[in-house]
Amino acid sequence: MSSDAPNQPKPEEDGVNVDATQSKKAAKKEAAKQQKRAAAAAAAAVTAISLDAPDPLAAHYGDIPLEDLQSKSVTGREWTEVGSLAEGLEGRTVLVRGRAQTVRAVSKKMAFLIVREKGFTVQCVLSVSPDVVSLGMVKFTTGLSRESYVDVEGTVSVPHSPIKGASQQVEIQVRKVYCISKAVPTLPINIEDAARSELEIDKALQAGEQLVRVNQDTRLNFRVLDLRTPSNQGIFRVQCQVENIFRQFLLSEGFVGIHTPKLIAGSSEGGSAVFRLDYKGQPACLAQSPQLHKQMAICGDFGRVFEVGPVFRAEDSFTHRHLCEFTGLDVEMEIKEHYSEVMDIVDRLFVALFDSLNERCQKELEAIGKQYPFEPLKYLRKTLRLTFQEGVQLLKEAGIEIDPLGDLNTESERKLGQLVLEKYGTEFYILHHYPLAVRPFYTMPCSDDPTYSNSFDIFIRGKP
Amino acid sequence: MSSDAPNQPKPEEDGVNVDATQSKKAAKKEAAKQQKRAAAAAAAAVTAISLDAPDPLAAHYGDIPLEDLQSKSVTGREWTEVGSLAEGLEGRTVLVRGRAQTVRAVSKKMAFLIVREKGFTVQCVLSVSPDVVSLGMVKFTTGLSRESYVDVEGTVSVPHSPIKGASQQVEIQVRKVYCISKAVPTLPINIEDAARSELEIDKALQAGEQLVRVNQDTRLNFRVLDLRTPSNQGIFRVQCQVENIFRQFLLSEGFVGIHTPKLIAGSSEGGSAVFRLDYKGQPACLAQSPQLHKQMAICGDFGRVFEVGPVFRAEDSFTHRHLCEFTGLDVEMEIKEHYSEVMDIVDRLFVALFDSLNERCQKELEAIGKQYPFEPLKYLRKTLRLTFQEGVQLLKEAGIEIDPLGDLNTESERKLGQLVLEKYGTEFYILHHYPLAVRPFYTMPCSDDPTYSNSFDIFIRGKP
Repeated sequence: MSSDAPNQPKPEEDGVNVDATQSKKAAKKEAAKQQKRAAAAAAAAVTAISLDAPDPLAAHYGDIPLEDLQSKSVTGREWTEVGSLAEGLEGRTVLVRGRAQTVRAVSKKMAFLIVREKGFTVQCVLSVSPDVVSLGMVKFTTGLSRESYVDVEGTVSVPHSPIKGASQQVEIQVRKVYCISKAVPTLPINIEDAARSELEIDKALQAGEQLVRVNQDTRLNFRVLDLRTPSNQGIFRVQCQVENIFRQFLLSEGFVGIHTPKLIAGSSEGGSAVFRLDYKGQPACLAQSPQLHKQMAICGDFGRVFEVGPVFRAEDSFTHRHLCEFTGLDVEMEIKEHYSEVMDIVDRLFVALFDSLNERCQKELEAIGKQYPFEPLKYLRKTLRLTFQEGVQLLKEAGIEIDPLGDLNTESERKLGQLVLEKYGTEFYILHHYPLAVRPFYTMPCSDDPTYSNSFDIFIRGKP
Repeated sequence: MSSDAPNQPKPEEDGVNVDATQSKKAAKKEAAKQQKRAAAAAAAAVTAISLDAPDPLAAHYGDIPLEDLQSKSVTGREWTEVGSLAEGLEGRTVLVRGRAQTVRAVSKKMAFLIVREKGFTVQCVLSVSPDVVSLGMVKFTTGLSRESYVDVEGTVSVPHSPIKGASQQVEIQVRKVYCISKAVPTLPINIEDAARSELEIDKALQAGEQLVRVNQDTRLNFRVLDLRTPSNQGIFRVQCQVENIFRQFLLSEGFVGIHTPKLIAGSSEGGSAVFRLDYKGQPACLAQSPQLHKQMAICGDFGRVFEVGPVFRAEDSFTHRHLCEFTGLDVEMEIKEHYSEVMDIVDRLFVALFDSLNERCQKELEAIGKQYPFEPLKYLRKTLRLTFQEGVQLLKEAGIEIDPLGDLNTESERKLGQLVLEKYGTEFYILHHYPLAVRPFYTMPCSDDPTYSNSFDIFIRGKP
């Protein structure tokens, strides 16, 4: 059926003139009654038809049965990624697959469906029109549970005003919509709620509106849902790029990527607690660091090595800097004559990393920034290198006395970061020539003053 | 001192004519005696000088004291990698740093030093000559213990005949040689012995010569030394390239690299034993597979993910296919409509891998092949795909009956690999459409026959 021309019965005009002798008032009353009845009948007819009558467009929407999803055939159809939908595609027919993030029914004849794929969203418009969109199709779409997986086919159009509720600035004029996997009607997390920034929630609160805040425990209990937010999609992709740039830079500098054992016979780093386990009747530990194995690789003549892999520490502290399991990015290299060679690599590695992230991850950084606003990192083309003594001097000038042969505490590191930013305009720098006493046993003392060492730390925003 | 012009005392000529009345015979005898004495004195003087007298070339060789290696200064000197020494550098002065693999003294005036860096070796020639190489320098060099770390400076020359004892086909005519780190005089493994192939040892044995064979336990007990062999240097570099190509290919296909938890609450794969440990008072397991977490990432809307990381299995079997810890290369992807999409990725991934290794790792594969001879892998540009039923049929034609709804055992897998090689000329193929009963619980049954499944395995040289 064409939903723009429903089989709406005409008002029973003859009812108005049944008896000419009746009073005008009675006639009017009766007419109104009749009209009401007629309208009700008409409405009922519309509902009845959209529910029961065969819809000529029925093949253009609906639930896809499982057996049609079991690799029945290769159709050669092409899907367009939601994130790639842009004005250049105007007028083109596209097929997208994604989550039904929200559905808004404007009327029985019109609905908006926001489809999300990998954190990107597009507004899909269903507007009843002959041979294209039926009332049944609108009804089916508005009945989709949130996060159901859908295939949408339609034409790309560019609206006159910017779209606020979706990341892509084009719409899809829907011609077909299928559900390939239904979500349960009520999910523990609504992705829109989970994607909201604290700032947004606070602003709404000030305006008297209460928005849902998804707490950390709920996020972790339903991690799979929380992963779907644009910010988490962005964070994971940035993480992946960090590793990628790290690896590519080091490979280009002659480093060899290795994987050192995680099940080892003893603890591998003095400073942190170790997880112990039984290894076929023998005591074993989970590696707290690849440090000693990296050094063995250098003794094994690899010259320069790196590793990206899990690090296990049985930490008891509950801070964001103490994790029981994390992914470590480790580097070890032979020094030809001066430890500045290592600083040179680190310097160029991080500048390459920052540059590449800004260049390649713009969309992701933007998505993250919407939920977790941040300022771009300030860094120099050639990284600032300060000796420990110079750092101590900077702090001294600011009225903070530090033991020149001791270590910096969290507070003095933070303060030094602030002083460096003010003086040198960078949030990233290298502090080197540390006092020997505060460094690990394998650190080389300085030749001219054995109370200091050939070692360094790197600082980003006041944190090593 | 110039060793070609030693301070050799002149024969005592006046001694010959002491007494004119002496007989000619006696005079001759005395002269001969005197000459002998003089020669002995001269020889003694040479030895004495090279050991005790100041050598004008003393600054050109010797042990570098530790304090000179403590990042004293940045000299800007450039080291040339041994592996890059080639005829194009003829006549150029180069500085190399590497291990003194072997030293051969031809005479007091001449010695050969083989220097090894990252598995590549170069022959360095010391030949006494005025103002260039002193007897002292030769003596110092021939006294170097094997595996000592040395800096050698000299001129690149191209010998007339091919060099057998080193990988590089040029020599270094030494002008300076320093030891920056002395090895102990006797090491548990000689790298030349460790680098020998079984074939070489057997051949020598047949010729009546007994060569040292370094056993597996010795290799593992002194892993750092064994890592220095050209084959191990090659294996680690090929491994690194395998990971690199795997990552680059998948990134180019829209996959996201992830790192899933290794410390988890339960076992992650039914078929293998699990390592258990105490996690702050709670029972925990080491992940036997990233399978379920990868699938969660797909539910989390990443579309396509991969992981390179350690896998832990408490295996009791002692075979080369049962390891308690190994590095897994895992892939998981959303299927749009047919599992052939996954086979397409796997097909192109492996062809890219084989192609790239052959292209980028020639030197490494050559070094590995010297110790562990191997044939290049036979593979097709488009990977062969056989259904399980086709495989069963092939085996049947060869007289081997297999349950069409069972699994292949190791022997039938090997045999099928052989039949495929004969028929299709490839050692790499995909077997798909497996019986459902032999696959994991999460495998999708085929829509047309639920006794079979939408799944596949890949085979290289008869092994999955």
